[in-house]
Amino acid sequence: MTVNAELYAEVQQFYANQMRLLDNLKIEDYAATFTPDGWIEHAHRNERAEGRATMIAGMYAALPRYKGVVVRHWYDHLVIEPSDGDSLKVSYYTLVTRVDKEGHVVFEPTFTVDDVLVRINGVLHTKSRYIVKDTPTD
Amino acid sequence: MTVNAELYAEVQQFYANQMRLLDNLKIEDYAATFTPDGWIEHAHRNERAEGRATMIAGMYAALPRYKGVVVRHWYDHLVIEPSDGDSLKVSYYTLVTRVDKEGHVVFEPTFTVDDVLVRINGVLHTKSRYIVKDTPTD
Amino acid sequence: MTVNAELYAEVQQFYANQMRLLDNLKIEDYAATFTPDGWIEHAHRNERAEGRATMIAGMYAALPRYKGVVVRHWYDHLVIEPSDGDSLKVSYYTLVTRVDKEGHVVFEPTFTVDDVLVRINGVLHTKSRYIVKDTPTD
Repeated sequence: MTVNAELYAEVQQFYANQMRLLDNLKIEDYAATFTPDGWIEHAHRNERAEGRATMIAGMYAALPRYKGVVVRHWYDHLVIEPSDGDSLKVSYYTLVTRVDKEGHVVFEPTFTVDDVLVRINGVLHTKSRYIVKDTPTD
Repeated sequence: MTVNAELYAEVQQFYANQMRLLDNLKIEDYAATFTPDGWIEHAHRNERAEGRATMIAGMYAALPRYKGVVVRHWYDHLVIEPSDGDSLKVSYYTLVTRVDKEGHVVFEPTFTVDDVLVRINGVLHTKSRYIVKDTPTD
Repeated sequence: MTVNAELYAEVQQFYANQMRLLDNLKIEDYAATFTPDGWIEHAHRNERAEGRATMIAGMYAALPRYKGVVVRHWYDHLVIEPSDGDSLKVSYYTLVTRVDKEGHVVFEPTFTVDDVLVRINGVLHTKSRYIVKDTPTD
């Protein structure tokens, strides 16, 4: 099935804005791009933050890890599937860079992410985000 | 010339799905995204696989190279040009990551790829893929 | 606000073509994708090239830095905002690779870029490009 071009552009813009908030550590604004009951699960460390308040607390606790570096999340290969009602399943690849003061770039492992997006008053929000670290099977 | 937005989104979705098959080593399913007489040429090693059966055999032979790593192909800067009849010329950049069990990421050289896409029963398939390793001229 | 899908695809194609010119060192052709009075500013080194002739001279002067490597500029997370009249504000992430003859890849620091695009006879051109090196605040 071919995704509608308007929806494709809208989803891309949604993530472009959402990642700017995350990468610039606008923690509350980033959390507000999720539904109030939204959740993020890091499957590889069996960790799940449910609801905006929990997300925000977790991100503040993790801030020391980002001292002295600028993080950027790079997306690719979005597969967008309209799901029941007004919701969308979106799957994508993520590459994460960290650059320090001297301009040296290091990479986190690659990830594959599965989101569910829904609309609140017509505006896309993330309802759930399931993050899998790409790990060899053998 | 400006490419039609619907076509742009369709081509992006085609590659998003095709790369998932390749990167997850769904070898037969990946080969099925090519036309039956489709071919892949690696110009830099003067190697050409013609037809799905040859592709599949070549990929199985190469599998040991992918033991213990997860490969991801990242695309950028697609230039899409409708060609004669129903076919499309698509050119793009490729960055290839390999991540091991410990999450360490290494990069293959960058590549520039030229595809020809055609429709079979309305569905896009790759008719040819010409892969050039980015190499300094001097 | 949601960007129009046709505009989204057009802007993506514009950059895909513009980066091919830059990365393949087609210096005059790259400069011609800017307005005659266009400018590029590298904020982190307080350096600004105004007008096509200045850009071209600067790029020829920088050529020795690119000897023996192929550079590729990777874009992500375009945020496109129609601005006054026919002009567009476009912001995006950039990752820059350099690959040498042996296929070894090194990365420049990551950047965030703010462009203004305008139309000349219906065709997009860059009027200004403001490049910020991603730098930790502390």
